[in-house]
Amino acid sequence: MNVEISLEKDLSLIRKNKPLILHLVNYVAMNDCANVTLALHASPIMTSYEDEIKEIVSKSDSLYINIGTPTRRIIDVIKQACKVANENKKPIILDPVGVGATKARTSFVHYLLKNYEIDVLKGNYGEICSVAGLNNAMKGVDSLEINEKIVLRSCKEIAREYSICVVATGEKDFVVDKNENAYVVLNGHEMLSMLTGSGCMLGSVIACFLTTQKPLNACLEGLVVFNVSAEIAAKHANGLGSFKVRLLDEISNVDTEQIKKLARIKVCQF
Amino acid sequence: MNVEISLEKDLSLIRKNKPLILHLVNYVAMNDCANVTLALHASPIMTSYEDEIKEIVSKSDSLYINIGTPTRRIIDVIKQACKVANENKKPIILDPVGVGATKARTSFVHYLLKNYEIDVLKGNYGEICSVAGLNNAMKGVDSLEINEKIVLRSCKEIAREYSICVVATGEKDFVVDKNENAYVVLNGHEMLSMLTGSGCMLGSVIACFLTTQKPLNACLEGLVVFNVSAEIAAKHANGLGSFKVRLLDEISNVDTEQIKKLARIKVCQF
Amino acid sequence: MNVEISLEKDLSLIRKNKPLILHLVNYVAMNDCANVTLALHASPIMTSYEDEIKEIVSKSDSLYINIGTPTRRIIDVIKQACKVANENKKPIILDPVGVGATKARTSFVHYLLKNYEIDVLKGNYGEICSVAGLNNAMKGVDSLEINEKIVLRSCKEIAREYSICVVATGEKDFVVDKNENAYVVLNGHEMLSMLTGSGCMLGSVIACFLTTQKPLNACLEGLVVFNVSAEIAAKHANGLGSFKVRLLDEISNVDTEQIKKLARIKVCQF
Repeated sequence: MNVEISLEKDLSLIRKNKPLILHLVNYVAMNDCANVTLALHASPIMTSYEDEIKEIVSKSDSLYINIGTPTRRIIDVIKQACKVANENKKPIILDPVGVGATKARTSFVHYLLKNYEIDVLKGNYGEICSVAGLNNAMKGVDSLEINEKIVLRSCKEIAREYSICVVATGEKDFVVDKNENAYVVLNGHEMLSMLTGSGCMLGSVIACFLTTQKPLNACLEGLVVFNVSAEIAAKHANGLGSFKVRLLDEISNVDTEQIKKLARIKVCQF
Repeated sequence: MNVEISLEKDLSLIRKNKPLILHLVNYVAMNDCANVTLALHASPIMTSYEDEIKEIVSKSDSLYINIGTPTRRIIDVIKQACKVANENKKPIILDPVGVGATKARTSFVHYLLKNYEIDVLKGNYGEICSVAGLNNAMKGVDSLEINEKIVLRSCKEIAREYSICVVATGEKDFVVDKNENAYVVLNGHEMLSMLTGSGCMLGSVIACFLTTQKPLNACLEGLVVFNVSAEIAAKHANGLGSFKVRLLDEISNVDTEQIKKLARIKVCQF
Repeated sequence: MNVEISLEKDLSLIRKNKPLILHLVNYVAMNDCANVTLALHASPIMTSYEDEIKEIVSKSDSLYINIGTPTRRIIDVIKQACKVANENKKPIILDPVGVGATKARTSFVHYLLKNYEIDVLKGNYGEICSVAGLNNAMKGVDSLEINEKIVLRSCKEIAREYSICVVATGEKDFVVDKNENAYVVLNGHEMLSMLTGSGCMLGSVIACFLTTQKPLNACLEGLVVFNVSAEIAAKHANGLGSFKVRLLDEISNVDTEQIKKLARIKVCQF
């Protein structure tokens, strides 16, 4: 697989088509998700309005579901959105924020995975391992330390069980699809784990690529664009505040040649 | 009309009186709206609390209604707020975010325009044309490409029908009031269209000037302050992140002489 | 009392234990609160989900309640959270945003103070004086000008009545505990009053220190860390935007020696 070549084409397509990315995401990262989507020249819409959700799903090019700040009302809207998305064959990426931290979140995530066709499940190590059944992997929305082999095994189990592409983010980022293709992306920077909404922004980026690519490629392209941008941003940052500013700068100036040169994607042996 | 002269006086009045600007705005831009309001030394309050909305409207100096992330609950609160604002003669600016994108938003915006006295309607080209009855002007909350003449005609129709001042933002910004005064503001920068919440921030700025000026002047003053600040910010920006930071810097350091010098407002012939 | 010495130990403890800080805070400052918490290496979680609130409170290390954007639903969740927090002896800091601005907020804040054991009450001058019964101290969520002696007296009255540690922020910051220990922190910068969510971020910082210290020390440590960081940030800022960026940079690089050197805490005579 050659991720680099399609990246150029896919970024141009997004720029040209300005796909509508429906965000059903948490309140903490909403602003950052919108900006990162706009930075790629796609068109974000954030709504959980009961009386328009069906119509807006049918007009969207992809859905990004992120359960960071759920409420009973929002959970109901997410279910409606997933139903209509499936009926209209719109790609969905699910970010199971905080799954494993509470029974309610865990049960909701499994409900979604069992009842709807989701294309991508993207979470941190703890979230992915929690979905795979591991207990005590989470502290709130943050991951506890977990062995990489357990993470990779969890990805594989979920990918097979739900015919889904799984992304597990941490020190290294793993991508595994339903056909047991497995990759590891070695780009990124530890400051990402200190920046709220960084995982959510990655979700938006992948949601953009889901409008031009199949899940596996969309995840790999999203990861290299986002993580290489973070690497460059970190070099120029004096702390968390300037890192965030610079990250958005880099993504809005994404340079395909540079991404290609710096991308470190490896095939992952099971 | 000499916008420049009253700008200085109005900015001083805002600084002195610190008007209370009630924001019923979307979750995406709430933080940015609050900061831009504070940058002008006005006092923002964001609330949709059912049990205080009437009291807080009656204490406010102007209302900024923005339907970017509506819910049934919020829509109900907005109606209550408009009713009390009209009873107490508080100026209202309405930002019909995403009108035309879904039937529910379109119908709600028309309901507001028909049932309450709104002073200013401010939207992007697509939103303004949608309110005027044009179909297919919107993709989500973003405007599709529309001929300027159609935009200007839409402004005029809405201004006359609802006795309202209309602002249409795009490559050029149009302002038309109920007396058929029409102006075009040529300031601004294309990065504004890439920054989430930039239109919402403009709404906050106009809401501040609505406490010191009649609608037409408030819109023109708001536009030049915001758009000239954006021009200066863009010169020093390396991308979307630093543009946002610098924009807020510029607005918090607003220099009347510089705004006057750079402002490009022209009378617009119908 | 030697605040400086325990600061080093407490920051290390937070870094090591990564305490889970439950935020029931307003939508305006949610992102900033999360980032400032992460900057100290603690783990923020923002949720008001009805079906998990009890479980997440019981797993949290401290609670930060901030009523900036209340709704009937959120108010109900806050009551549940406080109840479970008291049963499980979790420390609570309450930020009574806008108390005094409306009858509903005032009555809710008194309800919380009377029915639950709150460890810290932190507000601006106007909020603290409003809680103490002074009328006309607030314009929206902002404080009107109030004599320092009245502020200090208000702190004292509330501290005694509710056996609570009170922080009143303004030009000087006062801290008074139930045993009539009273301090004034002279650090800080006037730009903090122009930055939305700055008070909320301070709340998050204090919530972190509440996991390692008793209320009085947690407040003093939180204040010096936050205010000294603001002083340094202001020196390098060109306006409100860059001040915010730099503030987060400084907090994420907090240097105990520098804080100690610049901290200006004085015992306050009643």
